[in-house]
Amino acid sequence: MNPFVYHNPTQLIFGRGQLSMLKEKAEQLGQTVLLVYGGGSIKRSGLYEKVVSLLQEAGCRVLELSGVEPNPRLSTVKKGIELCRQEGVNWILAVGGGSVIDAAKAVAVGVPYEGDVWDFYTRKALATEALPLGTILTLAATGSEMNRGSVVTNWDTKEKHGASTTFPAFSILDPENTFSVPRDQTIYGISDIMSHVFEQYFTHTPEVPLQTRFAESILKTVVENADRVLANPDDYDARANILYCGTMALNGTLPVGVETDWATHSIEHAVSAVYDIPHGGGLAIIFPKWMRYVYRENVARFVRFAVEVWNVDPSGKTDDEVALEGIAATEAFFARIGAPTRLADYEIDDQHLQLMAEKATPFGPIGSFKKLSSEDVAQILRMSL
Amino acid sequence: MNPFVYHNPTQLIFGRGQLSMLKEKAEQLGQTVLLVYGGGSIKRSGLYEKVVSLLQEAGCRVLELSGVEPNPRLSTVKKGIELCRQEGVNWILAVGGGSVIDAAKAVAVGVPYEGDVWDFYTRKALATEALPLGTILTLAATGSEMNRGSVVTNWDTKEKHGASTTFPAFSILDPENTFSVPRDQTIYGISDIMSHVFEQYFTHTPEVPLQTRFAESILKTVVENADRVLANPDDYDARANILYCGTMALNGTLPVGVETDWATHSIEHAVSAVYDIPHGGGLAIIFPKWMRYVYRENVARFVRFAVEVWNVDPSGKTDDEVALEGIAATEAFFARIGAPTRLADYEIDDQHLQLMAEKATPFGPIGSFKKLSSEDVAQILRMSL
Repeated sequence: MNPFVYHNPTQLIFGRGQLSMLKEKAEQLGQTVLLVYGGGSIKRSGLYEKVVSLLQEAGCRVLELSGVEPNPRLSTVKKGIELCRQEGVNWILAVGGGSVIDAAKAVAVGVPYEGDVWDFYTRKALATEALPLGTILTLAATGSEMNRGSVVTNWDTKEKHGASTTFPAFSILDPENTFSVPRDQTIYGISDIMSHVFEQYFTHTPEVPLQTRFAESILKTVVENADRVLANPDDYDARANILYCGTMALNGTLPVGVETDWATHSIEHAVSAVYDIPHGGGLAIIFPKWMRYVYRENVARFVRFAVEVWNVDPSGKTDDEVALEGIAATEAFFARIGAPTRLADYEIDDQHLQLMAEKATPFGPIGSFKKLSSEDVAQILRMSL
Repeated sequence: MNPFVYHNPTQLIFGRGQLSMLKEKAEQLGQTVLLVYGGGSIKRSGLYEKVVSLLQEAGCRVLELSGVEPNPRLSTVKKGIELCRQEGVNWILAVGGGSVIDAAKAVAVGVPYEGDVWDFYTRKALATEALPLGTILTLAATGSEMNRGSVVTNWDTKEKHGASTTFPAFSILDPENTFSVPRDQTIYGISDIMSHVFEQYFTHTPEVPLQTRFAESILKTVVENADRVLANPDDYDARANILYCGTMALNGTLPVGVETDWATHSIEHAVSAVYDIPHGGGLAIIFPKWMRYVYRENVARFVRFAVEVWNVDPSGKTDDEVALEGIAATEAFFARIGAPTRLADYEIDDQHLQLMAEKATPFGPIGSFKKLSSEDVAQILRMSL
């Protein structure tokens, strides 16, 4: 286990009916709030009305930044920053999925920063100040509700980058708010959560048995609840289990003392930056190919993965066979729940393959399980076509 | 899964060499610090000198509250409160195990409180203010380094109670600081950690698969590292794994959305309040007897425990047999690592059995897996003689 520092001050408010706590939070955080949301699904579900009414009961003046995109855009973030500065906004409330929260985080750190907020994403500056941020999560996927990460896309430069921004002060997670998530978004969320775990599970760091078991626990719980939510989108317990897994997958618990990878996320960000495909869809396609490309770096880890997560019976098989059976089980799972399996599913061919490979490695080789050059990335993308 | 609120602001600073971060922390927290420690083992190990030197480098004036007892006493806490008030102490640094940290927490919340600090422990008042507290943990056991719990004993009334006090602002955990922990304390720590998990694992709350797997993960990791630390007390990785398990066992992660029990802790506190035996020793004795007394309330949970944690093969056996085999495996494990197995090991007979049963249930029945009256407690104590 490597030395580490863990700190996560976000208050997680989870379960049916917990939205009512918003009023008390609003009373503490200040009079003028910027409400950030996406394409209007929260209006159709009735959540928008409930939120606004609680904010008004708390005496808040409510400004809005709506229409945040699935891959949130820098231009939208800048609109939000401008609005906050003009109107003297005290705090921000994001209502939606990871994209909405990521955009809200960018606004929160952008307001007190004198330079260009994109500096945080290009590693030119580190965010140290932020407006207070609360979130109401409507989609189990990114884990953004309980971490300081934010991913934003700059369409002028076709770049999609992550930055360390600010922790939400609180996040309200009611599984009922995820009942209306469409089937494809539910699938992408499952793929996203599992991919987050993969990034932190495939490591060479020895002596991290608890972190390893926690990661496997999340994977097993997601797998056993995936069919349930897809068969019955209103299954409260199945939605709750997946929602909680999504938070635990990326709130800093898994990577403590562990060297993590994150190459596949960089590759997917490059694909999304060029083609604007859903993040979770891209991950479901690319991750099994990454696994095949790198598993020989630590076959034992992949053997463990196969046996613990996919119940592969290792008896009478070579380590290589067991490892490959685990990877095949991962692919089969994604296919079974209806996730895309090839870039061709999004009509992506090899036309911009080199461009994507370059975009995935803007600061040099990526990953740690196996360091990947742009040539390696091109190879993985070719396997994904 | 039940609705829940999770919030844990403690910064966990873990690993070899992390003590050096103390200087920066001290510079932030103020000039006058109360150093709280126990019987002097930190002087023998050299840790005391390192800590004082870092505090002095940070420009701190260092006052001391030493001699904190294994079951920390209210009288000691009051001495600390007095000292803080007289000397205008800005913050508190606890260096030691759970007892030292618990005493320091009591001092931290006692200083700004006008009434008697014992009020927090008798549920007459709730702590809302505290001096900032840092900890340097030297013993894997109580989890006090990352929660707001504190247990204090009042020897005037022979009562031992827990209270919700304050989270440490930071806790520094270097596994090397646990190398010198004596064999018996190491064993008690292991028993304490496992008992914390048991209290949160045996539940009737349905649909908590991730919490369940996390609990099993901690138990399996402690079990597989116990023999290693006992065979080689300087095994860094084994010490690190157990240390990290101790923190995760009681930092609020396991009980989210779960109805927990805690009856066995109440019973042990009653025994310790009358006989001043080591907490971990008492738990190793009482927990398996509690299991035998209650397992029929939810045999399926005990079957799962047997299979997942102790690798009991269930084939061809009744649920009752599998459950009992898991309980026997728990007893066998405690016996194997050298923990006490009967109250007689501490020369405790049935003389004060009724008194202890009454003291364990001062506010009425305890526990939730099975509600235990003082008669039930007496029965469990009788099984433990």
